[in-house]
Amino acid sequence: MTQLLSSIHSPKDVRALSRAQLTTLSNELRDFIVQSVAKTGGHLSSNLGTVELTVALHYIFNTPHDRIIWDVGHQSYPHKILTGRREKMSTLRQAGGISGFPKRSESDYDAFGTAHSSTSISAALGMAVVSRNSNTPRQHIAVIGDGAMTAGMAFEALNNAGVTPGVNLLVILNDNDMSISPPVGALNKYLTRLMSGSIAKDAHDLGKAVLEQLPSPLMDIARKVKGHAKGMLGPATLFEELGFNYSGPIDGHDLDALIPTLENLKKLGGLQFLHVITKKGQGYKLAEADPILYHGPGKFDPSLGIQAKTGASKPTFTQVFGEWICDQANADHRLIGITPAMREGSGLVEFEKRFPERYFDVGIAEQHAVTFGAGIACEGYKPVVAIYSTFLQRGYDQLIHDVALQNLDVTFALDRAGIVGADGATHAGNYDIAFLRCIPNMIVAVPSNENESRLLLSTCYQYEGPASVRYPRGSGIGEVVKKTLDTVAIGKGVVRQEGNEIVILAFGPLLYPAMEAAKELSATVVDMRFVKPLDTDLIKQLAQAHRAFVTIEEGCIMGGAGSAVSEYLYSQGICKPVLQLGLPDMFIDHGEQQAILSSLGLDKTGILKSIQTWKQGL
Amino acid sequence: MTQLLSSIHSPKDVRALSRAQLTTLSNELRDFIVQSVAKTGGHLSSNLGTVELTVALHYIFNTPHDRIIWDVGHQSYPHKILTGRREKMSTLRQAGGISGFPKRSESDYDAFGTAHSSTSISAALGMAVVSRNSNTPRQHIAVIGDGAMTAGMAFEALNNAGVTPGVNLLVILNDNDMSISPPVGALNKYLTRLMSGSIAKDAHDLGKAVLEQLPSPLMDIARKVKGHAKGMLGPATLFEELGFNYSGPIDGHDLDALIPTLENLKKLGGLQFLHVITKKGQGYKLAEADPILYHGPGKFDPSLGIQAKTGASKPTFTQVFGEWICDQANADHRLIGITPAMREGSGLVEFEKRFPERYFDVGIAEQHAVTFGAGIACEGYKPVVAIYSTFLQRGYDQLIHDVALQNLDVTFALDRAGIVGADGATHAGNYDIAFLRCIPNMIVAVPSNENESRLLLSTCYQYEGPASVRYPRGSGIGEVVKKTLDTVAIGKGVVRQEGNEIVILAFGPLLYPAMEAAKELSATVVDMRFVKPLDTDLIKQLAQAHRAFVTIEEGCIMGGAGSAVSEYLYSQGICKPVLQLGLPDMFIDHGEQQAILSSLGLDKTGILKSIQTWKQGL
Repeated sequence: MTQLLSSIHSPKDVRALSRAQLTTLSNELRDFIVQSVAKTGGHLSSNLGTVELTVALHYIFNTPHDRIIWDVGHQSYPHKILTGRREKMSTLRQAGGISGFPKRSESDYDAFGTAHSSTSISAALGMAVVSRNSNTPRQHIAVIGDGAMTAGMAFEALNNAGVTPGVNLLVILNDNDMSISPPVGALNKYLTRLMSGSIAKDAHDLGKAVLEQLPSPLMDIARKVKGHAKGMLGPATLFEELGFNYSGPIDGHDLDALIPTLENLKKLGGLQFLHVITKKGQGYKLAEADPILYHGPGKFDPSLGIQAKTGASKPTFTQVFGEWICDQANADHRLIGITPAMREGSGLVEFEKRFPERYFDVGIAEQHAVTFGAGIACEGYKPVVAIYSTFLQRGYDQLIHDVALQNLDVTFALDRAGIVGADGATHAGNYDIAFLRCIPNMIVAVPSNENESRLLLSTCYQYEGPASVRYPRGSGIGEVVKKTLDTVAIGKGVVRQEGNEIVILAFGPLLYPAMEAAKELSATVVDMRFVKPLDTDLIKQLAQAHRAFVTIEEGCIMGGAGSAVSEYLYSQGICKPVLQLGLPDMFIDHGEQQAILSSLGLDKTGILKSIQTWKQGL
Repeated sequence: MTQLLSSIHSPKDVRALSRAQLTTLSNELRDFIVQSVAKTGGHLSSNLGTVELTVALHYIFNTPHDRIIWDVGHQSYPHKILTGRREKMSTLRQAGGISGFPKRSESDYDAFGTAHSSTSISAALGMAVVSRNSNTPRQHIAVIGDGAMTAGMAFEALNNAGVTPGVNLLVILNDNDMSISPPVGALNKYLTRLMSGSIAKDAHDLGKAVLEQLPSPLMDIARKVKGHAKGMLGPATLFEELGFNYSGPIDGHDLDALIPTLENLKKLGGLQFLHVITKKGQGYKLAEADPILYHGPGKFDPSLGIQAKTGASKPTFTQVFGEWICDQANADHRLIGITPAMREGSGLVEFEKRFPERYFDVGIAEQHAVTFGAGIACEGYKPVVAIYSTFLQRGYDQLIHDVALQNLDVTFALDRAGIVGADGATHAGNYDIAFLRCIPNMIVAVPSNENESRLLLSTCYQYEGPASVRYPRGSGIGEVVKKTLDTVAIGKGVVRQEGNEIVILAFGPLLYPAMEAAKELSATVVDMRFVKPLDTDLIKQLAQAHRAFVTIEEGCIMGGAGSAVSEYLYSQGICKPVLQLGLPDMFIDHGEQQAILSSLGLDKTGILKSIQTWKQGL
């Protein structure tokens, strides 16, 4: 039954409810989320964990005047449902539908677009400064998970907030002891201790008992010390050291705890830090039992839960990487695997099991991940940094300054390169070819299929310098993967199809639709394998026998592989027409991967059409 | 007198000295540094602050077997002098001479190349993991300043180290209460409290007194609590919360404190955190009195100190920016200025004085700086992020995900774009055109002179979306700057010289040597003003009347402005020769800016020669 929920069209309706009705609303909301995500796929565990917190926030605060920023934003479904998007939940993450993350263009209630972790405190502080400077009474709330709190960026923001006077900033730590992978790091251990309540309680008991027993001169010392050392007789917390007023921990599923606490914090204003304990998957037994499995499921039957897949399916590029790294590690004891909190997503579950001493989940800490790898390489070991293309943007300076400049032997395995599908523009792996190839010393490899991916991983790994292999989300054409550790020549492409007049230079999996199109054109097709170094010998040779070039890549055209080709042709004084196919200069919304590629003219039909039109003008 | 110092050819010679001789050595070393830096220019204050620490480290630890990583590395001159590079100090930061930063290719004692802040703990941890996994007894030491500690990256590394068992990692916090700008942030306030010793002393006194007075049941509670709350009766520190054993603070100029402490920490091994207090400029009165002035001086007479410059000199691009931001802020109350710890370097000293409420030094925190700006823009205010080109690499993901994707009105003022001179490859501003222009929604403006810089700053500021203005280190041709806030048309270039046959499209200050060369060629020359949007109308029109194009930019050729031109020409089916002039695909060492440009063929002579050679092949 969703009687109450169906009467909620905006947070104003929530605020009109009685306190008792909020529990009913929460229960209906939770049920709606399970039913809805089961139909569309999407994030589940995290959203079940934030139901009561979302209800309480919209009940207490005057949204959208007050700003709520959902860090990462994969826990914002309850927020979307309460802010007028209940009916649109059936379109979640689908082309033309609503986004899986908060998005400013979607709703006034989405104060800040999120998806990459740990941005919320920075953004909220920026907003709070404007409210201060413009004398606007407003509250600014960042809801951030304990995983996201491990990123340096969150620390930078706390550190800056702690010395910014006169701002209203409420940081809510949504502590569920679980990012996607279980969280790691010293901060998490500390939070677990705080969470247990033992520090607070023991300290309180001790403090009280001590003060009661103290002779009066000691009381004087105690009072004197308290000003700059209040932690010593109370629950000192890291967050108080940074200038916040710490409250909690409280049960994030208990509205009787949440509502008076939030009311109080609203009154207090200033720099407030609230520690809330929630449970991922709360209220849906299957998700509670396995929050990782239910982190981001596809469609499923809520009464049965997620069923194991039957029958053999094509392995994904992620799985190909996961098998390769185990085999390569087995053959070379120097291999060290590094992930910034993406064990499952990057295919490292088996590697961790088999090589625990050589597996490092460094937390949501891409900057550290890259330089940690550089340090390892200095000592002659061979780090493999497994990272999504979009998240390498976070470690870009470290890749340039710590790895490439020192020409260190670090291999980057870039997953989710190109169009990512349902996650949309925030997760786009569209820019890596452009931002990597301009960096000296970097190798940029672009496998076209699963077996090529393994070959190029082995090749880049065995190369003693900085190298990257970019591969897409999901599976490719299903090429059989040979379980060797064979390598190929660096910077050499392979002619896949001989033709005449036109050469298509393919960089990555778009080789296959390009080959199909080429058949109708009698064009030559090359699997270039590498953007950098570019196979300039082959290009020069092909230039002699052909009239024009087509380049194709699943990456931005601006500065991409096609431009590498044109730079070379120009440098040689070769003047031939070049058609650059790839991703246009725009942010590309969520939708089904193949459908997006087709809409951009990057399937067989589109490629053929583009080339034919262009040929007419030659 | 440098009698003792001249006998030191490696740290082995230091370790052969008596304890008493170390004081003499330190004094000679300090004197040598003042004399040497006065002759070459370079960093001074920071190096005077690390004399005793450097002597003590090489005395106690077995370098280079043990690894010392100097964070930022601008305090590594004493280290260079003691590790066989004393005589080369006269070549410091000059072409062919030694680098101003640690550099692996320069010495085995330089365990890790540094220059960008806050990388040392990550790199040291990587090395420590290899030593652990390969059973190599070795110590790994990261020496990091209190300014560098504010960067999120340092926190990420501490957080990861805190849960990495079996590693030897000694983090030495070199706390001098001073990065380049005075440090900011809550962490610094906390360190100041720690530094004062008051927390430790009061806590110790209180703890002792309390325990002595306690009746015995309370003693039991106290013991029970201590295990997980030892901070309460001792100097709780943030670093202990993160899993390190904290020692200090100790006087970093007192060898009697340093040597036994380091000896002890060496024996202990594991995760150690030593808090050392030093004074920037120590021992040279003028630098002690004004460590900012003596942070990175040019040549000076040590007996007189740095003299105020006499006579009018050309303003630098930094000064042009500094004046512009004050004038623009005066005209628009919505302007907010943001710097990641580069108040002096970015020209914001006057702005801070005049607009303290609108000035934000966020610490060495580029990630936060950018997203903080995004938050401000969400609320309708207009942030200007003043940042060096090379440091924007640290905020790249935030620029993409938080600013450009949301099309927010943030203006980036990119200083030190292109060749930076004495700081060398680590600080190169060579990649920004390539890594910015591939991002949708970004405006990329490239002023050719001082007045253009002001015009383009005003233009980009008044444009309501993400925009960047890149300008070089130092001064330009000395163009008179009109003190207006006039704007120009976005994406429109200006023909500066009419000619025929060849068009030179100049992106930035290389316009001027290009114009000189063009005179001898009767070529047309355009000041393009913008890389993005590109003035495609103008290019198309010029293509009709000319035979070939030359592009020129002080940025990498790969993916740069020249490639933007070629992408456009190809997309229009225009087949004309293009000569792309710019920076080659290599890391470029330190040296004098103009000399480097000449060596790369980017002065009048070089440009002329390149074009003439190329013309012959047309």
